[in-house]
Amino acid sequence: MSANWGHHIELSLFGESHGKALGIVIGNLPAGIRLDMDAILKDMKRRAPGQNLMSTQRKEADEVEIMSGLLDGVTTGAPLCGMIYNTSQHSKDYSYLKAKMRPGHSDYPAYVKYKGFNDVRGGGHFSGRLTAPIVFAGAIAKQILATRGIHVGAHILSIKDVKDERYPLDITPDYLAALGEKQYPVINDEAMEKMRDVIEAARQGQNSVGGKIECAITGLKPGLGNPFFDSVEAHLSQLLFSIPAVKAVSFGDLDDITQFTGIEANDSYYYDGDVVKTRTNHNGGITGGITNGMPVVFNVSVKPTSSVSLKQQTINVETKQDDTLEIVGRHDPCIVQRAIVVVEAMAAIGILDMMEDIK
Amino acid sequence: MSANWGHHIELSLFGESHGKALGIVIGNLPAGIRLDMDAILKDMKRRAPGQNLMSTQRKEADEVEIMSGLLDGVTTGAPLCGMIYNTSQHSKDYSYLKAKMRPGHSDYPAYVKYKGFNDVRGGGHFSGRLTAPIVFAGAIAKQILATRGIHVGAHILSIKDVKDERYPLDITPDYLAALGEKQYPVINDEAMEKMRDVIEAARQGQNSVGGKIECAITGLKPGLGNPFFDSVEAHLSQLLFSIPAVKAVSFGDLDDITQFTGIEANDSYYYDGDVVKTRTNHNGGITGGITNGMPVVFNVSVKPTSSVSLKQQTINVETKQDDTLEIVGRHDPCIVQRAIVVVEAMAAIGILDMMEDIK
Amino acid sequence: MSANWGHHIELSLFGESHGKALGIVIGNLPAGIRLDMDAILKDMKRRAPGQNLMSTQRKEADEVEIMSGLLDGVTTGAPLCGMIYNTSQHSKDYSYLKAKMRPGHSDYPAYVKYKGFNDVRGGGHFSGRLTAPIVFAGAIAKQILATRGIHVGAHILSIKDVKDERYPLDITPDYLAALGEKQYPVINDEAMEKMRDVIEAARQGQNSVGGKIECAITGLKPGLGNPFFDSVEAHLSQLLFSIPAVKAVSFGDLDDITQFTGIEANDSYYYDGDVVKTRTNHNGGITGGITNGMPVVFNVSVKPTSSVSLKQQTINVETKQDDTLEIVGRHDPCIVQRAIVVVEAMAAIGILDMMEDIK
Amino acid sequence: MSANWGHHIELSLFGESHGKALGIVIGNLPAGIRLDMDAILKDMKRRAPGQNLMSTQRKEADEVEIMSGLLDGVTTGAPLCGMIYNTSQHSKDYSYLKAKMRPGHSDYPAYVKYKGFNDVRGGGHFSGRLTAPIVFAGAIAKQILATRGIHVGAHILSIKDVKDERYPLDITPDYLAALGEKQYPVINDEAMEKMRDVIEAARQGQNSVGGKIECAITGLKPGLGNPFFDSVEAHLSQLLFSIPAVKAVSFGDLDDITQFTGIEANDSYYYDGDVVKTRTNHNGGITGGITNGMPVVFNVSVKPTSSVSLKQQTINVETKQDDTLEIVGRHDPCIVQRAIVVVEAMAAIGILDMMEDIK
Repeated sequence: MSANWGHHIELSLFGESHGKALGIVIGNLPAGIRLDMDAILKDMKRRAPGQNLMSTQRKEADEVEIMSGLLDGVTTGAPLCGMIYNTSQHSKDYSYLKAKMRPGHSDYPAYVKYKGFNDVRGGGHFSGRLTAPIVFAGAIAKQILATRGIHVGAHILSIKDVKDERYPLDITPDYLAALGEKQYPVINDEAMEKMRDVIEAARQGQNSVGGKIECAITGLKPGLGNPFFDSVEAHLSQLLFSIPAVKAVSFGDLDDITQFTGIEANDSYYYDGDVVKTRTNHNGGITGGITNGMPVVFNVSVKPTSSVSLKQQTINVETKQDDTLEIVGRHDPCIVQRAIVVVEAMAAIGILDMMEDIK
Repeated sequence: MSANWGHHIELSLFGESHGKALGIVIGNLPAGIRLDMDAILKDMKRRAPGQNLMSTQRKEADEVEIMSGLLDGVTTGAPLCGMIYNTSQHSKDYSYLKAKMRPGHSDYPAYVKYKGFNDVRGGGHFSGRLTAPIVFAGAIAKQILATRGIHVGAHILSIKDVKDERYPLDITPDYLAALGEKQYPVINDEAMEKMRDVIEAARQGQNSVGGKIECAITGLKPGLGNPFFDSVEAHLSQLLFSIPAVKAVSFGDLDDITQFTGIEANDSYYYDGDVVKTRTNHNGGITGGITNGMPVVFNVSVKPTSSVSLKQQTINVETKQDDTLEIVGRHDPCIVQRAIVVVEAMAAIGILDMMEDIK
Repeated sequence: MSANWGHHIELSLFGESHGKALGIVIGNLPAGIRLDMDAILKDMKRRAPGQNLMSTQRKEADEVEIMSGLLDGVTTGAPLCGMIYNTSQHSKDYSYLKAKMRPGHSDYPAYVKYKGFNDVRGGGHFSGRLTAPIVFAGAIAKQILATRGIHVGAHILSIKDVKDERYPLDITPDYLAALGEKQYPVINDEAMEKMRDVIEAARQGQNSVGGKIECAITGLKPGLGNPFFDSVEAHLSQLLFSIPAVKAVSFGDLDDITQFTGIEANDSYYYDGDVVKTRTNHNGGITGGITNGMPVVFNVSVKPTSSVSLKQQTINVETKQDDTLEIVGRHDPCIVQRAIVVVEAMAAIGILDMMEDIK
Repeated sequence: MSANWGHHIELSLFGESHGKALGIVIGNLPAGIRLDMDAILKDMKRRAPGQNLMSTQRKEADEVEIMSGLLDGVTTGAPLCGMIYNTSQHSKDYSYLKAKMRPGHSDYPAYVKYKGFNDVRGGGHFSGRLTAPIVFAGAIAKQILATRGIHVGAHILSIKDVKDERYPLDITPDYLAALGEKQYPVINDEAMEKMRDVIEAARQGQNSVGGKIECAITGLKPGLGNPFFDSVEAHLSQLLFSIPAVKAVSFGDLDDITQFTGIEANDSYYYDGDVVKTRTNHNGGITGGITNGMPVVFNVSVKPTSSVSLKQQTINVETKQDDTLEIVGRHDPCIVQRAIVVVEAMAAIGILDMMEDIK
């Protein structure tokens, strides 16, 4: 399994759901950045379970201990390692997961790839818990971007068939911040109520639902990115598809750009004083793979949580027979709201990594 | 501009639409592969303009000359460079493109990024013509994959609001091959007729349309890929978003997985003899970032061609004023059908690059 | 500061001499390898200070705690993180190092690069202590290589002007192992006595000495490596020059190949049964950047320890004046013997990283 | 075979000695650099054979045609491809090289690695001719560095046992330039005469000799580089060992730093006005892997040319028997003088690649 990623910012992700610890090493950080630990903790909490009725009531202590790269609260320029100890993992019996492959999960492909040696407890290295260190890294990336006037925010665009509104064309950092303060970052409060109902119904039915997250990055100057292999879309999508359960990524502010004609889909330019803007943002702030100065806007699709309590058909790799499976324990009937801050983290990391002058 | 990409297979892409030549260097190819030049040429023709009524009538000589890495028709293991000379480029006047930024194109971001030094003739390095060497590399990747029983195919899934059917669950290499032989690779022939009408209407209206392409990769064993940063989705999406005009990528055989519940979206396993299969393929053959043995299936959204003849509003960076623009010359009212083989190429390259034992 | 390295094996190194902990993340390890913890501990001890009279009497607890990637003593295929906690670091006064730049050390360049924010306590991230996690990674790499019949060993080739003999042409794994068991891995025992005298004299004189280490890798098949940028020499040298204090790297079994003619320097081939061998190994088992089947042999030059107790002239970056410096505390008068296992580690990691079929 | 290299500057090298062409793609070049084609041609000639009595009298047309990335003599920011066509390659009979493996060359390892499919004509992709495109890339890198006040030069340090003097401590760009203008860049003219004699004797004896090249890079600010894996030494050494025939690399201005004590090897700092300098440069301008502001100085050992006309013992892989070999044709009795500009090129490329703010 590859641990490493990055050009200008380097990440190395490690750990398992029920191992001793999980963490991330962040290389190539600039020296002299005073980290706002409260802001980091706030982001960690946004991802943590048990924060609201929408998610599972399990408690996870996502306290990050910084092992290196920080002195007196200021980055030293050396690789910064953040660790999360797995203090409260129960000695639950996971042995049935060695045999029965959970549909929708990594179990079967991992069983083949790692010849049965992978840690299956709680999903092991494939656990959604690995997004905690990513949120940690993202919170640091956001702070560095903010010193450049770049801000990242995300909100729930839909839960199943209940839709929120899209970001307005002219998104301000204040708008993003205010939305981020909401317990449920949804623009339309009525939609939010309906979303809760849909999630609650899924919970009642021992089932789950998914949804979409829209993310915006403001304050980007034109000229960031590259044609082809390292376009902004290519670069961000690699990170976004690294988030477990993300199955689709779409750039621009349209639900489906292919339903429009060329003259409609093109974003026409104009001068707002001496600042170049476009009248629409259907291309999501990126043309030719490079930022054009408008907010970068995209949305991701999060599939319904694969862990459902309903009985499922599957295979048993020990008996080599078809079998049935009932996944025990409490599960998130929906992880969309917890994934918001993960999407923001990946967006921040991706943008920071594309900047050649961060030091 | 970054030229390079790849882990096990290396690509280096260069050239401009109206420069001397364009080409690609492919590193880390296995030695001893006899290339089927006819198959390469066939793929090149599928991308070339003027092949059918759906696309522009311009003629482009996309003959690739192999400069290195091949001896007596067999790969030597050394980097293979394929070159396409730009023989027939006219001395058309492109000077207006230095001032008027075409909406939807790279013009304005590239003008800022390269401080006005970028080659604007025909889009320069940002031209769709750069996909020709990618198709060349993809044709070679396909041949190597075929020796492993892995086959790649794609078809038009939709043109604007006209939809084709999706691939069946059990796709065979023969099915893919037969569809690829069609001049318009559409499963439902009636849909194809309607697509032609939509494209013809766009042409008449000096406008353009986009659409979706569905791609399938068959014959993959379980266990290819990684969790997180180098998941199959992450790896392929980076390449797919490198294709100009691609704005969305979605994995799985559903139009929108977020409209389904967990129990519906999970693909349940069963034993077909001793082969593990799933009853549906909503996760597109990938769970936990790793192939599960089912065909990898995904679709991409190609935005309507940005070059339209209709008058457009834009800016003039020389006068620093708003301006209007009429793009002269013939343009593809739709590039979806030409992009099919580009999508196949990227898929083949991406899969080959993930294989650790190709040599 | 970059943390990451590697193609097939990935390393991410972090930590500071006097921070909370230091460690390494190792990605892309094969699953199913049962680690021999005793062998790892043995290598850690070979590097640790205070093991013999030649080195400083400080005690460092180099106990590695494995945080991830290992289950029941067997690798899972997930990134493996090894941590070393800095338990016994004293609250010594390092404030003078903020002002007075130690000659031969990273102090001044790091002060400029990190704008004074770098951790100077004990050298911070530049400390030789960071080689402890490298030895840990190397010990794992050696175990994986051993399953393929590949063995790595190193010995002291010289301390200042006292020379040991070179490896014989036909080095066996047993020979390497026996030499490794020696407290001072020197082939010629008389040379070893003289080396001790030279080191002891340096200690008495509050000065230091350096030396050379010869390393051999046996059991390599012909065909590993590449021409040019990823030749075996290029690949290994990058790692070897990553070891603090290494200032020269030389491949082959000659002190200076430029003193010989072409006919002398060429290693002529012959068949030993059906195995191809060479009569000499002046090219160190590598021609054209690729292994030829003979042992890979090279040597590195370790400069005399920069920390000496003698008074030195230097600058004071706070007063912006010339100044003098006396480095307090006990220092290794020679680190060559402790660097042997570090060289072995880098060699093992480098070779493993070049193998495309390790999983 | 890997073709690609680089972080900020990207190289992709391709071609064979007797194929259609050889060349290099350079990615990530800054836009807006007017290339001095005469300076490029001058460097190409310094590497070309037949320039003086010291080297072979073969003629090679090393005219580079720039295929992309340049418009009206100015870089566009797009990947720049330089091609050298192999116009005058004779249809000489190289078939004997398929069977008889030349000692000291890549022949046997390449035969195994590429299963006999590698192009053996003139050494194929392993030919020293591949350094021509590297010199081309290096000449461009030098021009970009010169705009920052950074200059690169190299001279012959020794031919076999005949030594030149070392660079003085305070090397000026003018000094480097003047030495570069010499037909034989040797500081001590008497040494140069003796070197010619040694080379001439080798030619007469159908044998060959090697030597050392010292290279200096002036004008570097303190703070370039990294600890460990991407130290200046690690980064440059990877490139320097990519040059065929280089078997040793040593940093600093001493022949052997291990012959000195710590107090001698440390370069003490002082203020020259407000500029920090060192009284000696035994560490070659690099401590802790990072530049300290002094010139970076290193030397490489070039082994004696492997192609000698004397009869050699070798194996015949077709008959599977020991055999003898006489290499026909004219060979360089010494390639050190032609390698000077290759060393400069690699140094310039390596330094440019470490600069994070080149655009």
